[in-house]
Amino acid sequence: MLQISHRGQLMPPSPIRKLVPYAEAAKQKGVKVFHLNIGQPDIETPAPVLDAVRHFDFKVLEYSHSAGNESYRRKLVEYYGRVGVNVTYNQIIVTTGGSEAILFAMMTCLDAGDEIIIPEPFYANYNGFAVEAGVKVVPLTADIRNGFALPPAEAFEAAITPRTKAIMLCNPNNPTGYLYPLTELETLRDIAVRHGLYLFSDEAYREFCYDGEHTSAMHLKGADDHVILMDTISKRYSACGGRIGALVTRNKAVLDAVMKFAQARLSPPSFAQIAGEAAVDLPENYFDTTRAEYQSRRDLLVKRLNGMSGVYCPNPGGAFYAMASLPVDNADTFCQWLLESFSHEGQTVMLAPASGFYGTPGLGRQEVRLAYVLNKGDLARAMDCLEKALQVYPGKI
Amino acid sequence: MLQISHRGQLMPPSPIRKLVPYAEAAKQKGVKVFHLNIGQPDIETPAPVLDAVRHFDFKVLEYSHSAGNESYRRKLVEYYGRVGVNVTYNQIIVTTGGSEAILFAMMTCLDAGDEIIIPEPFYANYNGFAVEAGVKVVPLTADIRNGFALPPAEAFEAAITPRTKAIMLCNPNNPTGYLYPLTELETLRDIAVRHGLYLFSDEAYREFCYDGEHTSAMHLKGADDHVILMDTISKRYSACGGRIGALVTRNKAVLDAVMKFAQARLSPPSFAQIAGEAAVDLPENYFDTTRAEYQSRRDLLVKRLNGMSGVYCPNPGGAFYAMASLPVDNADTFCQWLLESFSHEGQTVMLAPASGFYGTPGLGRQEVRLAYVLNKGDLARAMDCLEKALQVYPGKI
Repeated sequence: MLQISHRGQLMPPSPIRKLVPYAEAAKQKGVKVFHLNIGQPDIETPAPVLDAVRHFDFKVLEYSHSAGNESYRRKLVEYYGRVGVNVTYNQIIVTTGGSEAILFAMMTCLDAGDEIIIPEPFYANYNGFAVEAGVKVVPLTADIRNGFALPPAEAFEAAITPRTKAIMLCNPNNPTGYLYPLTELETLRDIAVRHGLYLFSDEAYREFCYDGEHTSAMHLKGADDHVILMDTISKRYSACGGRIGALVTRNKAVLDAVMKFAQARLSPPSFAQIAGEAAVDLPENYFDTTRAEYQSRRDLLVKRLNGMSGVYCPNPGGAFYAMASLPVDNADTFCQWLLESFSHEGQTVMLAPASGFYGTPGLGRQEVRLAYVLNKGDLARAMDCLEKALQVYPGKI
Repeated sequence: MLQISHRGQLMPPSPIRKLVPYAEAAKQKGVKVFHLNIGQPDIETPAPVLDAVRHFDFKVLEYSHSAGNESYRRKLVEYYGRVGVNVTYNQIIVTTGGSEAILFAMMTCLDAGDEIIIPEPFYANYNGFAVEAGVKVVPLTADIRNGFALPPAEAFEAAITPRTKAIMLCNPNNPTGYLYPLTELETLRDIAVRHGLYLFSDEAYREFCYDGEHTSAMHLKGADDHVILMDTISKRYSACGGRIGALVTRNKAVLDAVMKFAQARLSPPSFAQIAGEAAVDLPENYFDTTRAEYQSRRDLLVKRLNGMSGVYCPNPGGAFYAMASLPVDNADTFCQWLLESFSHEGQTVMLAPASGFYGTPGLGRQEVRLAYVLNKGDLARAMDCLEKALQVYPGKI
């Protein structure tokens, strides 16, 4: 009998995309949907980055080096130097999006049945990569009432078992926007070193910090072999479709093993490596402009949310996400209702229910993630919709 | 203690690329190296395909649909229709190279510990994907003296265990160039149906058949739910760096499960989907020209090889590879020696030792794979090098 593998059955559907059919139905009815459900920025990809691709001059679209073009890796050394991360080009392996960096790290450092501790709520696709690698995610709850600060060291210590191989962090965080301060990172570093664990750090949103400095896990002293950085150009340069990321570490054994996974899939995409290389040469103020835009959106969003009766949204320090608790019976039901049964002046809003970002069943039932990836006009109109919706939603509590 | 996972240790290094440092050293000594070791064609990517990418008109490099742009999938329906494969656009999932299609199929259809039967020699990276999925490859030897024809049905029957979930074929074959006739495919179809197995068919080289028609596994009657096609634009349009492939099947449960893996990694690369879409509109004679070029190279290569004392090369019916047995003690040693210790008029040749293409330890020791991806002038000079080398190689037998 033909069957889907147990792994294929376990593989979670995307919590971000599962409402898509309802959004499509709303659009067919003529309702405008504001998409705050997905981290696809509306910011234009910088023209010099796109132009670099337009002006490629090769005649054969060849495989690149399995670790990525050397010229691009050398350029990335410049980029990392600017953010205080000193690495050599052979400590960088270019990946197919940050996604592949995460998968490679899990495959290389953990075996089936091994455990990885991740503060929840966390980026939902970590679950998918964990299923692919047969790895058990052990979630530690960060509380919205505490602004999603790191759970205490004791909670990590208590969660460690003989099968624990790694701790994973996204900083600044998707979905919470929480920016981890140096002290919390040092706490994790100490735990990782004491227990011989890897420290995986997903820093896709590094440039988007509003109320403090970003600390990279690669800055931490005394943990060179422990830290593995997962990175991507997707959000940094609004280049999500390029599918170019990087795995960066000073651990030689990890690099050697990851290279075998990289060789098996031959090479990362060639066109977008050109884009990535050009991006490093963008003027220094590029991030200032983009950061200011996101910050003003955040300020608008958080103010509007906290102005709604029964809504609470801690102020996110980075990335372009906010988590809010809503006065509803069930955020999954509410988000579907927004698309199926609600509109305000011909408009509605699509949010990501938070349940998919929690590993612990039952958590996040009253929470949603909002991605502030739309311009302020649209964002204000989306908030109008949400405010009206909360007034009339039948499952209001 | 930080350790590399067992899986990371098991992961095989690329047998095609492991001689690269020796080739680099040879080049530094001023020796010209003819690369017959890797399937990177020198054929130019068709200009309309590259131009389509040059002329993209978006301003934001967005994620595509996780299954690939609908416009591209609809275009692929046209392409498949032309090769007699009737599918709908939602039976196609665009992948990051053929590599990802293979990994997705293994992940979706097999669990850790399950077995997949593959005639050997086979594409070496199947081993890598199998390690990633925890799957056991069960090789069935195809004999060079038999032209690498399919092993007999009885051999497959004898190899099937309760853990067997799939049979995998590459047609026309990499590394042997063998073109499987309809009768052999029907034999496999019957076995797959009788035992409830998936039939994975990697058809990356479909257009390059020289002495007969290509039969797709998707043409087989009565096996719709069994057949999974893995495909790629890499070789077809000399677009290896695009990293665009496809998984095609009429099995709805498989499509649904594969979509979850596709969603986890968000989307395939955007730029090269534009290339792939344009490629389907190439004039019909595009493949005639390319095929004729490869065929004349094959004819030259096979004639030269069989003209060398002690060398035997069965005539490959497709792809752009040939396997040859050489009168040497050990093909691994010989291939390294060609780069380290030999040159003829300042030139040498790089070949892929066949041992990495066999799953059974010890097989392929006297065999090499040659990729005829160079123009005929270079190919002739490469054969001159090989002929001279075999005359003076100390390990000649």
